[in-house]
Amino acid sequence: MPKVTEEHRIARRAQIVAAARSCVLEQGFHKTTMADVIAASELSAGAVYGYFKSKEEIVAAIAEEALSAVDELFEKVLVTDGPVHPAMVLERVLNHIAEIADRPGGDVTRIGVQAWAEALRNPVVMEIAGGKYRMLRTRFTEVARRAQSDGTIDAGVDPEHVAQVLFGFVPGFILQRLIIGDVSPETYTAGLRAILR
Amino acid sequence: MPKVTEEHRIARRAQIVAAARSCVLEQGFHKTTMADVIAASELSAGAVYGYFKSKEEIVAAIAEEALSAVDELFEKVLVTDGPVHPAMVLERVLNHIAEIADRPGGDVTRIGVQAWAEALRNPVVMEIAGGKYRMLRTRFTEVARRAQSDGTIDAGVDPEHVAQVLFGFVPGFILQRLIIGDVSPETYTAGLRAILR
Repeated sequence: MPKVTEEHRIARRAQIVAAARSCVLEQGFHKTTMADVIAASELSAGAVYGYFKSKEEIVAAIAEEALSAVDELFEKVLVTDGPVHPAMVLERVLNHIAEIADRPGGDVTRIGVQAWAEALRNPVVMEIAGGKYRMLRTRFTEVARRAQSDGTIDAGVDPEHVAQVLFGFVPGFILQRLIIGDVSPETYTAGLRAILR
Repeated sequence: MPKVTEEHRIARRAQIVAAARSCVLEQGFHKTTMADVIAASELSAGAVYGYFKSKEEIVAAIAEEALSAVDELFEKVLVTDGPVHPAMVLERVLNHIAEIADRPGGDVTRIGVQAWAEALRNPVVMEIAGGKYRMLRTRFTEVARRAQSDGTIDAGVDPEHVAQVLFGFVPGFILQRLIIGDVSPETYTAGLRAILR
């Protein structure tokens, strides 16, 4: 048998994750089974299980893929020595979200909403989503601290509480974009700049 | 046969809606069937169909019940002649949400998250959710206009854009409360007051 290269493994893994995304977009997490993912991936059951032992492991991979890019974005923003304004950070995050949502292969924000619903019924998914969101929110805590030291936000307030609100803008944007349909990074940022200090 | 009183009809209807809520909390909207609701309601199929022709009609009833109370809250807030501060309005809305979430019969915010996921797959639910959210958001547009005439928010910004952001705080709060678990109306309002003008 030929030796499977690392490149080959990465491509196979991506193929399975893409198959899982299309299943979830079509029927939600709860109804999606490993058998559905295997059928959609056009690989053998053995091949798929070689990468992912369960649906939950695939959920974790999808979340990892979607959120690692957001995390990189924070790294870029926070590396600067200049002032870090929350509105500017949120503008970048929302632009990034709108951009990845339009990529071929399915709107990842729709997968996110399915994951929220699944988390409420599936403790493993809850653990994955909770962990990822907690990590992402610590980035907003850093933004809050920076804005406090810049004097943009009252330094007397717990930065964790500020981070809750800043993080909360994101699902608010995603949900309105999907369900009401009239928000864009431009309209949302205009609203944000009007209300933020 | 005895004549069915209006009171009796209201109680029966509430019994069906309560049964549907428990089904959705257990298995999500997508997996819930009319047969599940009928079984959980302990009424006959004919009795249930006498009130609701489809799962979607029950979804609409649950949404109506949950959101009409929020709408009344806005009416109370907006009736005043005094200044209407967005942070004050949001504080009241979040307190109300936290309060109804703790009522017996199941956390209605969990049903909300299930409805978001279902809306993305079911055009009828999308129509119901979109319509309800659009209506609720017009209340935030009124708040934005009032805050603009009070001078709390820049009058040069489209109040619809401000409303998008104000409305967006609510799903952001609900989601973190359910998935991260550490937000309360108090912490969120503290964060809000720190960042709002």
